Amino acid sequence: MNEDSTPVTDEEIFTGHEGGKLSVAAQRPISVARDLSIAYTPGVAKVSRAIAEDAALARQYTWAERLVVVVSDGTAVLGLGDIGPSASLPVMEGKSVLFKTFADLDSIPLVLNTTDVDEIVETLVRLRPSFGAVNLEDIAAPRCFELEDKLKAALDCPVMHDDQHGTAIVALAALRGANLVLDKNLADQRVVISGAGAAGVACARILQAAGIGEVTVLDSKGIIHQGRDGLNPVKQELAASTNASGLTGGLPEAIRGADVFLGLSGSTIEEELLATMATGSIVFALSNPDPEIHPDVAAKYASIVATGRSDFPNQINNVLAFPGVFRGALDSGARAITERMKIAAADAIVAVASDDLGPDRIVPSPLDPRVALEVAAAVAKAAGEDGVNS
Amino acid sequence: MNEDSTPVTDEEIFTGHEGGKLSVAAQRPISVARDLSIAYTPGVAKVSRAIAEDAALARQYTWAERLVVVVSDGTAVLGLGDIGPSASLPVMEGKSVLFKTFADLDSIPLVLNTTDVDEIVETLVRLRPSFGAVNLEDIAAPRCFELEDKLKAALDCPVMHDDQHGTAIVALAALRGANLVLDKNLADQRVVISGAGAAGVACARILQAAGIGEVTVLDSKGIIHQGRDGLNPVKQELAASTNASGLTGGLPEAIRGADVFLGLSGSTIEEELLATMATGSIVFALSNPDPEIHPDVAAKYASIVATGRSDFPNQINNVLAFPGVFRGALDSGARAITERMKIAAADAIVAVASDDLGPDRIVPSPLDPRVALEVAAAVAKAAGEDGVNS
Repeated sequence: MNEDSTPVTDEEIFTGHEGGKLSVAAQRPISVARDLSIAYTPGVAKVSRAIAEDAALARQYTWAERLVVVVSDGTAVLGLGDIGPSASLPVMEGKSVLFKTFADLDSIPLVLNTTDVDEIVETLVRLRPSFGAVNLEDIAAPRCFELEDKLKAALDCPVMHDDQHGTAIVALAALRGANLVLDKNLADQRVVISGAGAAGVACARILQAAGIGEVTVLDSKGIIHQGRDGLNPVKQELAASTNASGLTGGLPEAIRGADVFLGLSGSTIEEELLATMATGSIVFALSNPDPEIHPDVAAKYASIVATGRSDFPNQINNVLAFPGVFRGALDSGARAITERMKIAAADAIVAVASDDLGPDRIVPSPLDPRVALEVAAAVAKAAGEDGVNS
Repeated sequence: MNEDSTPVTDEEIFTGHEGGKLSVAAQRPISVARDLSIAYTPGVAKVSRAIAEDAALARQYTWAERLVVVVSDGTAVLGLGDIGPSASLPVMEGKSVLFKTFADLDSIPLVLNTTDVDEIVETLVRLRPSFGAVNLEDIAAPRCFELEDKLKAALDCPVMHDDQHGTAIVALAALRGANLVLDKNLADQRVVISGAGAAGVACARILQAAGIGEVTVLDSKGIIHQGRDGLNPVKQELAASTNASGLTGGLPEAIRGADVFLGLSGSTIEEELLATMATGSIVFALSNPDPEIHPDVAAKYASIVATGRSDFPNQINNVLAFPGVFRGALDSGARAITERMKIAAADAIVAVASDDLGPDRIVPSPLDPRVALEVAAAVAKAAGEDGVNS
């Protein structure tokens, strides 16, 4: 740990949010009457007239096609749960700050006073001319799956629920980085995913798409397996596609002999259970703000440990993925974000760190300015391969 | 005319809109890991938790309560008419730039793919936690009247249709300024308002509230008078409350002997008609981008001429009003914008120019940095007098 990772104080935190974290700036100053004649009347009428005649010019002469809206109903905020739209706003503002900082994309939070999926879709459809892409954030499962599906169908622009796919992309990148350090192969590994919410489901899917050996997923009632009663449709699909070994029971049964633990549950794990994993195990305790287990404790049993926090080593942070993913999608004019684009993003993240990997450095630093550029380029290329930008 | 008021070129205009006119900025930079721990996880969780426990803290720790959304459906854009939401966006971005430049208020455009009043209201009610005030813009009459009324009833925050009330405030300020120069009194004057759209109706109302002698309003079919067939409810109300002289007919009948011509119609007026006005007449040709008559021509007949354009003298521009009006409303925590607040704004605008008035200077320059400050202070004071901030 370096000096920088001493815990931040409450005073630092609240001072750092005073007045909010965002502001709007004019691209060009209004200083003299001529500036006003250009930016506003009478000049602006010519630009509006031009767009009315050729809608494609909106991309060139407005900010909308480069604007990411960060949308939340505040129902699953960090590890805090359903705290509502106003209380979620500091998180959404933070997300917009990160879009700007890492990908030079303009971004605004839109927090909603409704949790109805169809109302959220309807609202964004009505606002469609105002923005270029939608980052869904902190929306509770299983509603988030239905919302993302319906939004993708309704909007002709990139839509991504970051808690699902951003987390999945960085988890895949981190596991690939850890495997490079430990000289292990994804195809030989069994991963236990604790948590079948937004992130857990998406991680299971991307790891399967990338060729993982086996996935065991647990929710609050234990291992998700075929024949278990009361599974919602998303979990039924998980039961059918995961757990080839047919495990039943809880975390003790799931984790015994597992190669990778991926914690996304907001709960805790006892260190005794980590002792039952396979040798050379990998532990990603990603719940925020409180990891499932302190990384120093986990390190007694695991070869590589990572968390979601910026004040511990090996931070697996979505900021490695979402700025570059959206930048690449918008740069390429993509109308959607495909599986190929997500896996390309994970590969690009690992590639940035590849000449400098180690047990405490399985992914690049979230502050590494190369990451978003490389991710954006890889995502734009994949968009072209998938033809979603034409 | 000074050097600065030579016409702007198309190249200047389109270059000045390249990439849009707005960007989002972070209030504080994210440079080191500690910044990320403060602005995002884990630090942000404490701020969200605090707002969840005390909703009033959102005002202190988010940008929402100082954010003005500029809302349009693109149905009455400048003089261009119904060009749709995308083509209206450059105007709305320009408006947001002006909010920032003159009142240091953050502002974002929200353009809507619907023209249904109830859908627009519903959309903004759902988004209410995202913003602090609503500036309605370029929405066609008579729908704009219904929309503003319903929005005011549905939202507990300042709502103002600027094309109505911003124009009315600056028109009143300009007429008071002109009267100071010419030593005339509002109570002795008859004003002809050409145009019964958003601006025309609001100007009639504020001039009456301020004590004008008489108002004659015309729409495209001529003078609005009692007994005329086919008037919508807003025009019926105008017919009842204006035109005490009982004039009928068109512009020639209306303007003969009038003291003030207020053009808000997007049409033109022949110079022969201006010759029939009372001596010492005042002509405000406010249509944008093309005034009803060139000011040099109008000046042959009128003692004082003004337009809405920044490249002619005596620009009567809403920018004199709306930044300060919203700033004052938000500073004072007002939940509405009242008639008293609007008239206070007009008085504050004139007061700024009062020691320096002349035939070519009946209002302050739109670039005068004192205006928004003075308007904001006057509006905040009036909000307190009306008790809308408690």
